[in-house]
Parts: sequence; C-alpha cells; structure tokens
Amino acid sequence: MAEPTDISDQRLLKGARARASIARHAADVASAEGLTGLSLGRLASDLGISKSGVATLFGSKEKLQLAAVDAAREVFVDHVVRPALTHPRGWPRLRALIDNWLAYIDEPVFPGGCFRTAGMVEFDSRPGPVRDALKADHDDWFALLEQEIRRAQEQGHAADLDPHAVAFHLDALISAANTAARFGDDTAIPTARAIIDRLLDA
Amino acid sequence: MAEPTDISDQRLLKGARARASIARHAADVASAEGLTGLSLGRLASDLGISKSGVATLFGSKEKLQLAAVDAAREVFVDHVVRPALTHPRGWPRLRALIDNWLAYIDEPVFPGGCFRTAGMVEFDSRPGPVRDALKADHDDWFALLEQEIRRAQEQGHAADLDPHAVAFHLDALISAANTAARFGDDTAIPTARAIIDRLLDA
Repeated sequence: MAEPTDISDQRLLKGARARASIARHAADVASAEGLTGLSLGRLASDLGISKSGVATLFGSKEKLQLAAVDAAREVFVDHVVRPALTHPRGWPRLRALIDNWLAYIDEPVFPGGCFRTAGMVEFDSRPGPVRDALKADHDDWFALLEQEIRRAQEQGHAADLDPHAVAFHLDALISAANTAARFGDDTAIPTARAIIDRLLDA
Repeated sequence: MAEPTDISDQRLLKGARARASIARHAADVASAEGLTGLSLGRLASDLGISKSGVATLFGSKEKLQLAAVDAAREVFVDHVVRPALTHPRGWPRLRALIDNWLAYIDEPVFPGGCFRTAGMVEFDSRPGPVRDALKADHDDWFALLEQEIRRAQEQGHAADLDPHAVAFHLDALISAANTAARFGDDTAIPTARAIIDRLLDA
C-alpha cells in the first residue's frame, strides 16, 4: 500500500489509530470492571480526550463494547493463537495452544484477567449484539481447538473422546484457574495443568 | 421462642422480613445484571417501596451487595447442600451434592443462573468486603466438598487424587456448564455430567 499523501488519508489513519487505542483501553477497563461498566465519558476522561471525540469515533456505548470485544480478541490471537501456528498441526499445535493459554492466564495481559471468561459470564443473561459477538468469538475459538484435537486424535493422541467435550473440558479448567488465581489460589494453574496433562495423555 | 407481643417486636420482625425479601430480590437482580448493577433506588423502584426505606434497612450499596451474597448463599444451601445431608456421609452424600448442584444449574433458581459463578468472576479484580464475602462462601463450599471427597476416598471411591484438586475440577466443570447452558449449548450439562462420572468412577 502506498503511503498516504493527502490530508484526508492522514486524517483517516489518525482516526483509525485513535480508535484502536481507545478500543484497547476499553478492553482493559472492561476486563476488570465489566463491559457494562464502560462509558464514552469514562474512556474520554481516562485518555484525556473529549467525550465528543470518543462519541464521533464510536457512536454509542454498545459500539464501544463491541470494539472492546474485538480488541480483546486480537490480543488473545496475538498471545495464544498466532505463536502456536508455527508448530505442526495436530498434537504439537494443540500442546502449544494450551501452553500459551495457560501462560496467558498466569501472566494476564488484561488487568482483570481473562477477558473472554469475564465477558461470557457478564453477558450470559443479556441478549443483544455484545452477547452475540462474545458467543461468535467463543465459537471460533472452540472450532480451532476442536480441529486440532481431532487432528491430534488422528495422530494417536488425546484419548478417544468427543472433540467438543475435550474443548469444553479444557476451557472449563483454564477459565476456573483464571478465576481462582485472581482470588489468590496459587495452586489453581498448576492443578489445571496437571489435570490437562492426565486428560490428554490418557 | 414466644410469639412477639409488643409493638417493637412486631416492628423488628416486619423489618427483618422486609430486609430478607429485599435481599432475595437483590440476589435475583445481581445474578443477571451483576452485583455492581445493584442500587438502593433500583431495588426500591422494583419493589414499589421508598428509596429511604431501603436505605434505612441497608445503609449503603455495599451492605445491599453483602446482603445479596448472603441471600444467594442461603438459596444454594437450601437447594444443593441441605437435601444432600439426608444421605450417608462420604460417597452417597458427594453424589447427592453433585446431582443437586447439576440440577440447580439445569433449572436455575436465579434468573441469571449460578450466582456464585457470576459473582466470583465479577469481583475477581475488585478488592473489598464483597469480594471477601464471595471468597468466604466459595471456601466454605470447597471445604464441604473436600470433606466428602476425602470420606468417599476412605470408602474406596473417587480415585486417589488430591481432594482440593477434585473439588476444583468439579467446580470448573459445573461453572463452565452453567455459562455454556446460558449461551444455548444444550450439550454442556450432559457433557459435564459424563466427565464427572468418569472422573469419580476412576
């Protein structure tokens, strides 16, 4: 792509960068205080910009929530999914996904810990576009996990269990470890790891 | 205890009943909208009473949140713990606790599903008395589970695993089933049940 030369291109890029940076901060706030705790005014005040500026970029609280979900999804892909793609498909990639996921829980990128766990639980009873976006993100993640579980099984690993049940089981253990670790239980992440090792080596 | 006879006794009882009924409604609201979504004004408006009346009974939003945690704890004890106490200690009581817990997830008493799961995730990054109360409730529940797991193991059941790790594993599966079921995954509760059966029969 050529460098932007005219003023409107530069404005567009500046707007896109501002949008991404506000969305990322919104994901940080939401991870600790909930997506419902987000507000255009709060974000503007945190970032030292005008509320009308944030409103111009996002339009509504719901659009800001959706942008926070997108931003959190990208962070998860960057930390957990992308580095695993360098490993061969199937068993090695599944192990890499799980290792990255546990590391992501152990040293959380978001101040409130795992964004997906927090968002899913917060919105499980609130129908609407935000819940739909969280569900779509969750379903994509499960589809990726199930694909690698199926391949690992074809390679003779990870026991003869339904791939969706294995994905559910992994997600349950790691989400619970995230919450327990945030409540000060230092045994939670090693416990989850040991259970997962037993589960996959069976 | 004798029947109350004078006016101040009756006032006290009326106050206690009003308090219990407001706390129970607060737990309902919090299960769906979060404990941070509670407010004295919202509760008063829902129940058709004055905000100053609610304020007199609870004093502050935090005290209302703490009362909601207590009310939810009592509901859990009534539905999950108390009916299991009629079963012999150890293996039969552990199975009854798990059956009641899964039934409680499957046909939720609270409009927002499991109150503990929602509260723990919401407050995992918010230090203070509400988080402490949620943690104390969670620790009591784990202590009870671990006691029955230990007894079941002495009776030759539930594999030779650390009781805390087994409690963590059960809690992870049932909490995840609660969230998944609320997102429309009909397989979640049967999947959790099947995994638990395998885990405990091992």
